[in-house]
Amino acid sequence: MQMKFRREVNQDDIDHVSEILESTGFFYHSEVEIARELAQENIEKGEEKSGYIFNIAEIENMPVGFTTYGKIPGTADSFDLYWIAVHKSHQGKGLGKILMAMAIEHIKMMGGRNIWIETSSRPIYEPTRQFYLKSGCELIAVLPDYYGEKDHKVIFLKKT
Amino acid sequence: MQMKFRREVNQDDIDHVSEILESTGFFYHSEVEIARELAQENIEKGEEKSGYIFNIAEIENMPVGFTTYGKIPGTADSFDLYWIAVHKSHQGKGLGKILMAMAIEHIKMMGGRNIWIETSSRPIYEPTRQFYLKSGCELIAVLPDYYGEKDHKVIFLKKT
Repeated sequence: MQMKFRREVNQDDIDHVSEILESTGFFYHSEVEIARELAQENIEKGEEKSGYIFNIAEIENMPVGFTTYGKIPGTADSFDLYWIAVHKSHQGKGLGKILMAMAIEHIKMMGGRNIWIETSSRPIYEPTRQFYLKSGCELIAVLPDYYGEKDHKVIFLKKT
Repeated sequence: MQMKFRREVNQDDIDHVSEILESTGFFYHSEVEIARELAQENIEKGEEKSGYIFNIAEIENMPVGFTTYGKIPGTADSFDLYWIAVHKSHQGKGLGKILMAMAIEHIKMMGGRNIWIETSSRPIYEPTRQFYLKSGCELIAVLPDYYGEKDHKVIFLKKT
């Protein structure tokens, strides 16, 4: 099995990003749209100017997972991990762990000390939250009813 | 003393926003730039499309304070209060309290239930934090070292 990772984003990746996110069944249409916009900004402005760094995982030349992260403007050394997703048909192979480790390493290399990760408290996200905890992230805060009634924002922190 | 409030933002207000923020001595240059950009977006796209609602307080036809707030995309009924500031030379007249009360009322009218407010833990912001607590905001979370070393992000919530 050939596994590749690349930071270059090309126009075809816009649809790959949608397909990967939609396959998980986790995300609202509006969220998928936002991910597409971030990829588009990366293509148009580059990863530095856009502030959205992508790392795309390919298996047999097919994009099957990705992370998106970037420096938080106005902070000294905080980064946001905006997205981490693996296509439904390629989950359980440790790809998420690899993508997470690569993001942490890259952010550390860039001088980042804090990686902030936000997710929802909805039950569907329980495996996601467990994944972050197992990846060494610390649960820092819960913002009650942030996304909607009984849908809290959960904030994790990974020190690099 | 004539006091007026208006939601219309015009090109002159870009500089008024800077002057008000700079007079307080609280904000970094980069933060003032962001506030200017939000005002510019409001002028270009309107308050609804931009997502940045301004309420500008005038005394004797001179802008002396403002709030900026807006619905948080991807949430059901959460709003961010991005800015609340009163010119140094007009502080202590209760203008901040009035602007805060108006923002809460307007957000409530638009169906908003949660108003999220972020600030820094730096000592210089102690009066700001006291202001939020006195305005009925609840301290919800502290994100350690978010802005920089020993410069935490403090998150308040005001239920409408």
